[in-house]
Amino acid sequence: MNDISHLAHVEILTNKFEESLDFFTRVYGLSESGRDATSVYLRAWDDYEFCTLKLTRSETTGVAHIAYRASSPEALERRIKVIEGMGCAEGWIDGDLSHGPAFQFRSPAGHLFEIYYETKRYQAEGAEKPALKNVAQRYHARGAAPRRIDHLNILAPVVEDIETFMTTALGSKVTEKIVLDDGRLAGCWFTVNNKTYDLACTCDFTGVPARFHHVTYATDQREDILRAADIFLENGVHIETGPHKHAVQGTFFLYVWEPAGNRVELANAGARLILDPDWEPVIWTESDRKKGQAWGLKTISSFHTHGTPPAPAPSDE
Amino acid sequence: MNDISHLAHVEILTNKFEESLDFFTRVYGLSESGRDATSVYLRAWDDYEFCTLKLTRSETTGVAHIAYRASSPEALERRIKVIEGMGCAEGWIDGDLSHGPAFQFRSPAGHLFEIYYETKRYQAEGAEKPALKNVAQRYHARGAAPRRIDHLNILAPVVEDIETFMTTALGSKVTEKIVLDDGRLAGCWFTVNNKTYDLACTCDFTGVPARFHHVTYATDQREDILRAADIFLENGVHIETGPHKHAVQGTFFLYVWEPAGNRVELANAGARLILDPDWEPVIWTESDRKKGQAWGLKTISSFHTHGTPPAPAPSDE
Amino acid sequence: MNDISHLAHVEILTNKFEESLDFFTRVYGLSESGRDATSVYLRAWDDYEFCTLKLTRSETTGVAHIAYRASSPEALERRIKVIEGMGCAEGWIDGDLSHGPAFQFRSPAGHLFEIYYETKRYQAEGAEKPALKNVAQRYHARGAAPRRIDHLNILAPVVEDIETFMTTALGSKVTEKIVLDDGRLAGCWFTVNNKTYDLACTCDFTGVPARFHHVTYATDQREDILRAADIFLENGVHIETGPHKHAVQGTFFLYVWEPAGNRVELANAGARLILDPDWEPVIWTESDRKKGQAWGLKTISSFHTHGTPPAPAPSDE
Amino acid sequence: MNDISHLAHVEILTNKFEESLDFFTRVYGLSESGRDATSVYLRAWDDYEFCTLKLTRSETTGVAHIAYRASSPEALERRIKVIEGMGCAEGWIDGDLSHGPAFQFRSPAGHLFEIYYETKRYQAEGAEKPALKNVAQRYHARGAAPRRIDHLNILAPVVEDIETFMTTALGSKVTEKIVLDDGRLAGCWFTVNNKTYDLACTCDFTGVPARFHHVTYATDQREDILRAADIFLENGVHIETGPHKHAVQGTFFLYVWEPAGNRVELANAGARLILDPDWEPVIWTESDRKKGQAWGLKTISSFHTHGTPPAPAPSDE
Repeated sequence: MNDISHLAHVEILTNKFEESLDFFTRVYGLSESGRDATSVYLRAWDDYEFCTLKLTRSETTGVAHIAYRASSPEALERRIKVIEGMGCAEGWIDGDLSHGPAFQFRSPAGHLFEIYYETKRYQAEGAEKPALKNVAQRYHARGAAPRRIDHLNILAPVVEDIETFMTTALGSKVTEKIVLDDGRLAGCWFTVNNKTYDLACTCDFTGVPARFHHVTYATDQREDILRAADIFLENGVHIETGPHKHAVQGTFFLYVWEPAGNRVELANAGARLILDPDWEPVIWTESDRKKGQAWGLKTISSFHTHGTPPAPAPSDE
Repeated sequence: MNDISHLAHVEILTNKFEESLDFFTRVYGLSESGRDATSVYLRAWDDYEFCTLKLTRSETTGVAHIAYRASSPEALERRIKVIEGMGCAEGWIDGDLSHGPAFQFRSPAGHLFEIYYETKRYQAEGAEKPALKNVAQRYHARGAAPRRIDHLNILAPVVEDIETFMTTALGSKVTEKIVLDDGRLAGCWFTVNNKTYDLACTCDFTGVPARFHHVTYATDQREDILRAADIFLENGVHIETGPHKHAVQGTFFLYVWEPAGNRVELANAGARLILDPDWEPVIWTESDRKKGQAWGLKTISSFHTHGTPPAPAPSDE
Repeated sequence: MNDISHLAHVEILTNKFEESLDFFTRVYGLSESGRDATSVYLRAWDDYEFCTLKLTRSETTGVAHIAYRASSPEALERRIKVIEGMGCAEGWIDGDLSHGPAFQFRSPAGHLFEIYYETKRYQAEGAEKPALKNVAQRYHARGAAPRRIDHLNILAPVVEDIETFMTTALGSKVTEKIVLDDGRLAGCWFTVNNKTYDLACTCDFTGVPARFHHVTYATDQREDILRAADIFLENGVHIETGPHKHAVQGTFFLYVWEPAGNRVELANAGARLILDPDWEPVIWTESDRKKGQAWGLKTISSFHTHGTPPAPAPSDE
Repeated sequence: MNDISHLAHVEILTNKFEESLDFFTRVYGLSESGRDATSVYLRAWDDYEFCTLKLTRSETTGVAHIAYRASSPEALERRIKVIEGMGCAEGWIDGDLSHGPAFQFRSPAGHLFEIYYETKRYQAEGAEKPALKNVAQRYHARGAAPRRIDHLNILAPVVEDIETFMTTALGSKVTEKIVLDDGRLAGCWFTVNNKTYDLACTCDFTGVPARFHHVTYATDQREDILRAADIFLENGVHIETGPHKHAVQGTFFLYVWEPAGNRVELANAGARLILDPDWEPVIWTESDRKKGQAWGLKTISSFHTHGTPPAPAPSDE
């Protein structure tokens, strides 16, 4: 088992708290586990932890921190040693409603990460108890109702720096990458386990540090995403692009903007997993990428400019 | 990373070789990678290895051997040491068309297992090259066309023995189990990675050693399984039960018998994975199991009796 | 255009009014259009009429009446003349919240039918207005959320009598039928338009008159039915049989019992329509039916006995 | 019943006969019923007639003729009287391998139409016999394998002329239309039965007469279309746009160009039918259409220019 078991949660900032919360619960279909002074703790119905999305009231948007769970206390210690050696450590925090002490550190692009082992599991009670005992919570069928958190996408001016950071700090493997004709990385996809990716980093041209591209939850079926498209349509949610199939990673996707502007995705990877212990990263060239998405859809231009918090002009926003 | 990366392949015996081969390639939708004097090497379109199902001409049916791939040469050595200490080692073999040297050993119920590290990767050529470079082979859309091997189910008179064997020899985790009211195990589900299971063992009451229950490939969507049901129907394949959803493990399933009688499944787990490093096995009781499958289908009686090779009467066969 | 355009609505009796209403609205996903002293008027989100299911408080269960809409006032008159000639006319009623004057008549098995032309169309207002102007109401995604009423199944001691009745009174076509070895009809499927059937009649062996087998709404996709199965499971709804595919008519189905015991189906016919003006009824023999449903599921025994209102013992209830 | 029962077949011209035939049979999944000197007669697996797409060797591309089947000999006579009164009659032809005598006439934009009653039904033989007796042919699962012909889209310089033509000659109903701000029709959708449309006409700005926009077959599920997208991708077929959901008519769609350039669609309407005998056409305005397709996809520009036969420049071709 790897030292780091899985992507655990993300803290998202919103300057339209009530609207964002309504979106994430009623339309997107997450459930509230608890709340404190500034945040509501959300999760999908089969996320085993208390929180996979911490929604926090703020004057801006974007990502506040990104958390991974270690596989054991010893594994956590091993990672902290490595991170301290990298010179990017921020130190321990006490944790919050959703987990125990966490060790924080910062990416070269300014994103705050944390790792922890002690977690709070979600305990379904009353009407939320599932009919089948092997899922975390009943399938509530509210809104898009994805099953679990899937991955994040962060923006960075130098993707190579994030590649070094993720593979060193977390021991992530690179599963796919986009290499421009001049040799620079335009995008890089990482995983700590058998999922094909749990974090992606794509290139930010705006100069704004620590920007966020999107958070994604996984649906069980592609049909759930087609159905969600109608739910978004009927609820006035801005659909940015999709449903369609990515060439990179082959996931079926749909991107929307929650009311405060943070990009949110639903995705389905089918039965695709990375099982090969010696998996070699798939390299996509500029020429490959000119073909657009898997079935020919051109990548929408806002995909290269819109992030949160928003960048000052020139941009499309 | 665990010492053992994943279930790799299974060798299935058939006394109706041509019919079985026609079923597995034309109807079930596997592809032939190669053949030798006694066997054809088959794989699903996104299996990265040369072979995940070795179909072997025989006078009987059932499973000849079960193979897992180690994550490194060192991990392989670690496992061999453990296995030698268990007293069930059979020793090295040279390998075959699909992989290098393998170390064999035997389960308490008589099933032959092997582990190896050196493998032969499938290299798509000519018309089999995929349009997208992150899959092993083009999606050929022939027959049921599952994506990859998923899991096996073996039969044993004492499931507890297999539980000890799997967790010790391979370091498998138990993810779910059925515990009878008298405390005995009726079934146990194992995994070496984030898949919810790669091998299941259920109780054999016939006294015949080393019997096989089924091999399963994973489809990307549940709709692929509904479509496959029509393909099986139109091709005169015996559909034993399904499509339906298992209570245990929650997979959507369809069981058929290939022409020689070996049971073959298609399954879809949706986005369900075991990510928690401290996952506690889910325990199903007799009372739970009396509810049948997830949506109430009664477990078909042949499920408790039919295995390969067939057992002498009394049985349903 | 035929004189009779389509099946319009059914009035269902319930002796557990509040529970039935909760089931039909929150779980099954119909919407309330209005209510009067004894009934709530329900419809699916794309039913164009004000009501397709009138749920009525009663001391028993079953069907109170079945309504078809005529294609014009003249067509209505033509049908009434025929029905009066048949000797089964009951005469005019004033209508109710959902439609204007209707002409009632009775089937040989005692079921009350009515036909009418003047209807009340559903007018979506406020939050119920759809994003797309070609559907009747927004897709609300509540519960199983089927699109429209599909068909009914009634029980009769002599199916041949219903065959004569339907084809004469409504001008229905027979699309499929089950003929027993002794020549008697065990089931008969009727349509007045391009749908493959809007009413089925199967044989009742209990001697209780005018019994009801089930009402069915159509979903857009089979996946909607698989998803609904989980919704029923999580809401404690009795799932009787399915999901599976019927041999007769080829529809994908799921049967449940609403709290008062009336059987309710969800079905999907795919793209199947009857377009041939000279369609010859498909005849299923006893031998055909012994194969069970399309993929081999045995027809559940309660399907032959359970109807509403319940029949006195001997029965399975 | 209407005088005209349904859209029956279309004759498509190709100047790349062998490639087009390979596309329609191996990739798109139609089957050959027969052939004569210049044409191959094709149909989908549940089309009841011998031919729904007649593929004809030619020096150009586009549509040669469009055929509807009348509901009876008398209905055919009634229609012919009307058409003769319109002054667009071309007179009788003998028919071909797929049907008996047909009466031909021409649309104001130059498209050749025909109506007939005497047809040749497809008779499945040998391996093509279906397992279930209520479908025309076994589900062969070859290529995209749609179920039946669905609709055509023709181009005309003055859509209003086609509206008059279709409603008069065939008695078609208009179900939806696009009305520009200046009052002109940009598109009009017609049906002769409960299908939401069987023919669409959109505006041709090129001045070339009798052009063809596309032919569409219906799949049972949306998932069939997603799967088909991968089949087209793997077979090098040009995917023009989709999969996505139309705002107009709400169908889930995918458009490709067969090797000779004729546009071909797969579509799924879910359970949507036009059942209301008094259905009022849905009117889409320029403002409505600026929102793009249902989930926001912009209508691809080639959709307004590409037709067959190709028009001389200026165009996108």
